[in-house]
Amino acid sequence: MDALVVSPGRCGGVEFVRDHPEPSPAAGEVTIRVELAGICSTDLEIARGYMEFRSVPGHEFVGSVVAGSDALQGKRVVGEINCVCSACDMCRAGLGTHCRNRTVLGIAGRDGAFAQYVTLPERNCHVVPDEVGDRQAVVVEPLAAAVQVVKQHPVDESTRVAVMGVGRLGALIAQVLTLQGCRLEAIDRSPRALAFAQQRGIRTVHADEVVPQAEHDLVVESTGSPAGLDLAVRLVRPRGTIVLKSTYAGAAELNLAPIVVNEIRLVGNRCGPFPDALELLRTDQVEVEGLISGEYPLERGAEAFAAAADPQNVKILLRPGPP
Amino acid sequence: MDALVVSPGRCGGVEFVRDHPEPSPAAGEVTIRVELAGICSTDLEIARGYMEFRSVPGHEFVGSVVAGSDALQGKRVVGEINCVCSACDMCRAGLGTHCRNRTVLGIAGRDGAFAQYVTLPERNCHVVPDEVGDRQAVVVEPLAAAVQVVKQHPVDESTRVAVMGVGRLGALIAQVLTLQGCRLEAIDRSPRALAFAQQRGIRTVHADEVVPQAEHDLVVESTGSPAGLDLAVRLVRPRGTIVLKSTYAGAAELNLAPIVVNEIRLVGNRCGPFPDALELLRTDQVEVEGLISGEYPLERGAEAFAAAADPQNVKILLRPGPP
Repeated sequence: MDALVVSPGRCGGVEFVRDHPEPSPAAGEVTIRVELAGICSTDLEIARGYMEFRSVPGHEFVGSVVAGSDALQGKRVVGEINCVCSACDMCRAGLGTHCRNRTVLGIAGRDGAFAQYVTLPERNCHVVPDEVGDRQAVVVEPLAAAVQVVKQHPVDESTRVAVMGVGRLGALIAQVLTLQGCRLEAIDRSPRALAFAQQRGIRTVHADEVVPQAEHDLVVESTGSPAGLDLAVRLVRPRGTIVLKSTYAGAAELNLAPIVVNEIRLVGNRCGPFPDALELLRTDQVEVEGLISGEYPLERGAEAFAAAADPQNVKILLRPGPP
Repeated sequence: MDALVVSPGRCGGVEFVRDHPEPSPAAGEVTIRVELAGICSTDLEIARGYMEFRSVPGHEFVGSVVAGSDALQGKRVVGEINCVCSACDMCRAGLGTHCRNRTVLGIAGRDGAFAQYVTLPERNCHVVPDEVGDRQAVVVEPLAAAVQVVKQHPVDESTRVAVMGVGRLGALIAQVLTLQGCRLEAIDRSPRALAFAQQRGIRTVHADEVVPQAEHDLVVESTGSPAGLDLAVRLVRPRGTIVLKSTYAGAAELNLAPIVVNEIRLVGNRCGPFPDALELLRTDQVEVEGLISGEYPLERGAEAFAAAADPQNVKILLRPGPP
């Protein structure tokens, strides 16, 4: 089948191939024909060698079930990316996304969605409501992660929140936060990212004009840059919380003293609840279309990766051709 | 009066002077004659230039009130180190230790306890019960910080906890944790630190023999070294907590990816409740004497600082002479 394969060093870090073996579903798994997939920052890092993953990347997708489940046959689905053992200490503790033996779609031990077909456990699949188009459904995975921020750190109208980096994932997080009615500021450098946030009624501050005063109760760091984290530490109030949402490859320089002195909490955050994200899209509470900068056929995958890495662009989609 | 003054570059980073001006108490403050004071890692960092503090260091002490309060006159006291405004947003939110306008004894804006006399607000003082000797009372400040770890992160018999670095502060934290009955491991390199923990019935592991398996619910990092934090990240389980208890001067290299992927919480921790610490000492639940490596007169302050920086030693005390 057609697929993109990670090939660090080549153009864009990925290579289009026509003869990648089709994935064969294990017991309890379904085969899904991928309709549309999205490139995120983690994919860009993977193409640069992160996780030493050397197969098919891609974990944001929408597709149709073509085999493996009578209940789901022909249904349009999105899929949770962690495939778990259900037996280890983490699974037994209800922390399946941290399964000790997991494979992760397009990230670790399992071919991803930048291909004509992908397999996933049936229980990982969520049927997409008719009201949700493919170009919306493709962001369910990052939108679920955005929802998780609010689940872990409930906010109300008095909560002062900053989201740093409102390009791709940050734009979803900012939208989810603003639905809660908190006192939100979106911080970025990109005119496009700032304009999108403003259109959604979110107060914006250019990154160069931020005057940190240790006043925010919650800061979401989604710039992916160590400099961003340094600013986050100066934005957050004593005993406040910084949520780390970026994919950081390699080591970062960080001044830890203010974290101790100000008793700051730094919390990593990865996956979230798909049903909540689908409901936000079904009820049109989150705008996605304005975040999409382009759609490429799989054959032009290397070009698509280059476009996704260009800060002028936001979300870049890939559409595998029909079999 | 006699005092040590920070003098980076000179021997030990401190200089003994005979003619330092006596502190004059402001309204609501008392004057305390210092009986005994302790050197902690923060003092060592301050002597190296941390916080750019250039006056009298020292914040762990026990002394006798000699002026400023009828109620406390002649009483033996220990003192909370943050002197607050009671008016800023932090004070009004009940976070006085994070007062925006605070001075901190021997650390920021206020002469400390390595002197014959010190002043503090009366409300900062806690009377020391008769059962508690001076050599115990002098550790109330770090012991209170140790108590705060358990207050912020309650543990029970099933909680797997590691304390990394059980020299000074870590030895107190390990003792407080073991009182809760958790599954505790003390990790260190120093034979003396490991032997002390073993004598208290705490399971120990030499730092070179740790096999991190991401299994600990709670890891307390009190080594003060960035390498310690790197190991902490590999010890803690997904969704587990790392408490940062060290004073870190300067920037550290840190790999942030596992914090995000494993959704780890990193929490800074500084001050704690003095009454709880005094009660632990009064009821003899925490052993201090075995942690004291030496007691020096103030005149030999530079020598005392050098001794405190020597990993062979644990707690070094300073005893100002009588006026």
